[in-house]
Amino acid sequence: MATLVLAEWAANLNSSTIPTDVSVAVQRTLFNWLGCTIYGHHHGTVQKARKALQPFFGPPQASLIGGDIQVDIQHAALLNGIASHVHDNDDTHLATIIHPGGPVASAAVAYAQYAGSVSGAELETALIVGIEAECKLGLAVWPSHYDIGWHITSTTGAIGAAVAVGRLMRLSVQNMAHAIGIASVQVNGLRTVFGTDTKSFNVGAAARAGLTAALLAQQGFTSGQDVLEAKRGWANVVTPSGRPRLDELLGQLGQIWEVKSNAFKPFPCGIVAHPAIDAAIQLRQKLCKEQGPSVAFQDLHFRVEVHPLVIELTSNPAPKDGLEAKFSVAHGVAVGLFVGKAGPAQYTDEAVADPNISDLTSRVQALSKSELKTDEAVLKVLSANGMEVNSLHVQHAIGSVARPMTDEELVAKFKDQVGLVYSSGVAEEVAGRAWTLTSQGSMIDALRMLTAVLQSAH
Amino acid sequence: MATLVLAEWAANLNSSTIPTDVSVAVQRTLFNWLGCTIYGHHHGTVQKARKALQPFFGPPQASLIGGDIQVDIQHAALLNGIASHVHDNDDTHLATIIHPGGPVASAAVAYAQYAGSVSGAELETALIVGIEAECKLGLAVWPSHYDIGWHITSTTGAIGAAVAVGRLMRLSVQNMAHAIGIASVQVNGLRTVFGTDTKSFNVGAAARAGLTAALLAQQGFTSGQDVLEAKRGWANVVTPSGRPRLDELLGQLGQIWEVKSNAFKPFPCGIVAHPAIDAAIQLRQKLCKEQGPSVAFQDLHFRVEVHPLVIELTSNPAPKDGLEAKFSVAHGVAVGLFVGKAGPAQYTDEAVADPNISDLTSRVQALSKSELKTDEAVLKVLSANGMEVNSLHVQHAIGSVARPMTDEELVAKFKDQVGLVYSSGVAEEVAGRAWTLTSQGSMIDALRMLTAVLQSAH
Repeated sequence: MATLVLAEWAANLNSSTIPTDVSVAVQRTLFNWLGCTIYGHHHGTVQKARKALQPFFGPPQASLIGGDIQVDIQHAALLNGIASHVHDNDDTHLATIIHPGGPVASAAVAYAQYAGSVSGAELETALIVGIEAECKLGLAVWPSHYDIGWHITSTTGAIGAAVAVGRLMRLSVQNMAHAIGIASVQVNGLRTVFGTDTKSFNVGAAARAGLTAALLAQQGFTSGQDVLEAKRGWANVVTPSGRPRLDELLGQLGQIWEVKSNAFKPFPCGIVAHPAIDAAIQLRQKLCKEQGPSVAFQDLHFRVEVHPLVIELTSNPAPKDGLEAKFSVAHGVAVGLFVGKAGPAQYTDEAVADPNISDLTSRVQALSKSELKTDEAVLKVLSANGMEVNSLHVQHAIGSVARPMTDEELVAKFKDQVGLVYSSGVAEEVAGRAWTLTSQGSMIDALRMLTAVLQSAH
Repeated sequence: MATLVLAEWAANLNSSTIPTDVSVAVQRTLFNWLGCTIYGHHHGTVQKARKALQPFFGPPQASLIGGDIQVDIQHAALLNGIASHVHDNDDTHLATIIHPGGPVASAAVAYAQYAGSVSGAELETALIVGIEAECKLGLAVWPSHYDIGWHITSTTGAIGAAVAVGRLMRLSVQNMAHAIGIASVQVNGLRTVFGTDTKSFNVGAAARAGLTAALLAQQGFTSGQDVLEAKRGWANVVTPSGRPRLDELLGQLGQIWEVKSNAFKPFPCGIVAHPAIDAAIQLRQKLCKEQGPSVAFQDLHFRVEVHPLVIELTSNPAPKDGLEAKFSVAHGVAVGLFVGKAGPAQYTDEAVADPNISDLTSRVQALSKSELKTDEAVLKVLSANGMEVNSLHVQHAIGSVARPMTDEELVAKFKDQVGLVYSSGVAEEVAGRAWTLTSQGSMIDALRMLTAVLQSAH
C-alpha cells in the first residue's frame, strides 16, 4: 500500500491544514534554492552542460534561473537542478543528508512556469508534498541505501519531483501512483562520481526524471500501483541489504514534517568544518569588540579543537585553490579570522592565493578531540611562546539543528552568492523578490519579474 | 581498469578488422530494430508518450521512425526506444535476455541523423561497440542483477547507447570513459513494471540517458575514469549480492562477439511458447502437403507437450484480447494451425475474437513434460475418440540459437509488422531499403529515403 498511501496523501493534502512553521520552512527552502541556483548557473559545470544540450532545447517555457534565456521545461529542470547543487551549498535534511530543494524545486518551478497559472500557495503545497515524499523515502531506506553507494538526493529526488509536479497538475490518486512508479524506475546517482561534474548532474537528472514521470502519468501512462513496495519494487531493489521501512515512514506523512528539519549551510564547504569556522568568525567579533575593527594577528597561533571527523575529512593544511579550500578547516578558520565571514568569495582561487590568508592558514593547527560533538568546536589563540591568550567555545554551530540560520543570515547568504555574479544592487532586489515568492497571488508573475531583473543585468 | 578497457576498445576498434559474420549480425539487428520500431510507433503506449512530450520537442533533427515528424534527438531516442520494445518482439541476447538493439540503435540512429554525415559502415561500427558493451556488462552482472529486479536491457543499455554515440562522435578514450560514467549513474528500469506502459519506457529512457551522457562528455563533462569498477561504482551497486565479473568479460571484447548470438523472435509473444507455435505451423504445412490447402480440423483435438516453464508462464486457455493471447500457448497453437503463421496480425484483439480461432484454442491442451528442452515441443493430433492420428516433433524452435531465423524469415517478419500499419507495397519497399542501410555510403540519405516512403504513406 505504500505507493497508494503516498499518492493519496500527496494528491489530497488540504493546503489549509498545513501548519505555519511548515510553510515557513518551505519558503526558506525555496529562497535558498533560488540563491544557490542563480549563483550556480555561472559555474563551469553548468555552462558545459548548457553548451552540450543547447542544440536540443525546445520552446522557451521556463527560465534557466540565473541565465539569460528560457528553455523547454525538461531542460530547465535538468540545468537548474545541476546549478542548485554545484556549489555544495544547498539545503540539507541532516537525518538523511538529502538536499531536498534541488530535484523538487527545479522540476516544480519549471512546470509551474509552463502551466502558467500557479499561485504562491499552490507552489508551496507542491514543494511540501515533494519534499516530504523524498525525505520519508530517504529515511525508509537509510542508511544501507546510502552506504552501498547511491546518491540519496537524486534517487529519492526523482520521486519527490514527480510528486510535486503531479500535485501542480492535480493528478488523480491513481495517476499520482503511476507518476511515482515511472519516477521510481529512473534511479539516478552514484556517490562514486563525487568530486566530478556528474555529482550535480545526478540532481538535475533526478529533476528531469520526475518531471518526465508526471508528464507521462498525466496522459494515462501506466506503471503499476505498487512500484515502491513490490517484491522487486524500488525500495527492495535499491536497499538490497537493508529492510526498507516504507510503511512506518509513510505512515508519518503529515504527522512529522521533514521540511522543518531541513537545514541550511552557511559556508560553501563540507558541513563538518562549520563549527570551527563559526568559532573563528565569533572570535573575530569578540576581538573587534575588545580591540576595535583593525584586529591584528601577527605573532599569534591558533589551535582549533574539533570532532575527529573534521580531521579525517578536512585536514588539508595548505590548499592550493578554491576547490581544495573546501576540504581545509585551517583555511576556513583563517578566513573567519581575517575577513569575518566564509562565504563563496572566501572560497575562490583568488582568496586562497591571498598571502594574508595563506599566512594565517599556516598558523592554524587542528586537533582531534573525541569528546567534542560534530557541531561543536573550541578555538584557542596562542602567543608566540605558546601561552593561551584567548579562546572561544561554539557549542552548536550555526546551521545545525540546534541553531538554525536565522532569516537574516539566510538573506545575507543569498546576497553573498548572487552578489558574486551580479551587482550588490541586483542581489538586494532579487533577494527581496525571492523571499516573497510563495506569498504571491501569481507566483509565475513574481518569478517573471525576478528573472527580468537578472536578465536585464546580463 | 574496466572502464578504461571498455573505453579504449570502443574508441579505437579498427572497423576493417570486424569479422564478416559480426557485420552480418549487426545488419540483421538493425533491420529487425527498424521493423519493430516502425510497427511499434503506432502502439498506444508510444502515442501516449508522444502526446505527453510533444509540447517540449526541440528542433526537427531525427525521425520518429514510423511516425510522420522529426523531433530533437533526445526525444527521438526516447520515443523510438519505447517503440522498439513495446510489442515484445525485438531481438534477444539469450544468455542475458538483453534486447540489445533498442537502447543502442535508438540513440545511435538519432544522433547519426543529427551529425549529418555518417556512412553505413560507421553506423555499423558504432552499433557493434554499443551492443558488445551492453552484452558484456550484462554477462558480468548476470544473474544476480536481473534476479534482484533490474530490467537488464535498460540498465546496461544506457551504457551501450553512450558507447555507440561516443563512437560516432569519435570521442577520445578519456571522454569515452567519462561518457560511460555519466551513463552509469542513470540506472533505468525495474522488472516490477512489466505488463505496464513503463516496461518499454525503461528502454527509451536508457537510450535517452546514454545519448545525454555522450553529449555531455563531448563537452568535457567529467565523471571519473573508473565508474564501472569503483568500490561504490556501477557494477557493485547494481549487483549487491553477486560478484560482478567485469575484468573477465571486458577482457573478451573483440575475442568473443556477443552480437553473433543475438537472436530474433519470430512470434510476438513470450519466447517459451515458440516451440509449440513452431510445431503448429509445421504441422499445418505437413497437413497441407497431405490434404491440399483446405485443411479441416473439425472433431480433432490437439495435445502439445512442452517444457514445464511454458505451462507456468503461458497457460491461459481462453484469452480475451491480444495482450492476454501473448500469454496463451493454446492461442499460439490455434493460429499456427488455422492461419499457418503467428505474426502480429494473429495477436490482435480481432484475431482473438475470431470464432474459428477461439474454437480451435479451446481444443488445444498443453501438457508439461520435464524431459523436453525449452526450445523443444511435440504436437499431437487426436481424433474424437482420443486416437493419435498425426504428430510433429520440433527439436529446436525457430529463433533458437540452434536454429536462427534465416534472412528470408527476418524479412517476412518485417513485412508482417510494417504491413499491419502500412500497405504491403510500402512494407515491401521499406524492407528493401532497411536491409541495405549499413551498406550505404551515406546511411543518413538512405534513412531519409526510407522515412520519406513511410511519411508519404501517412
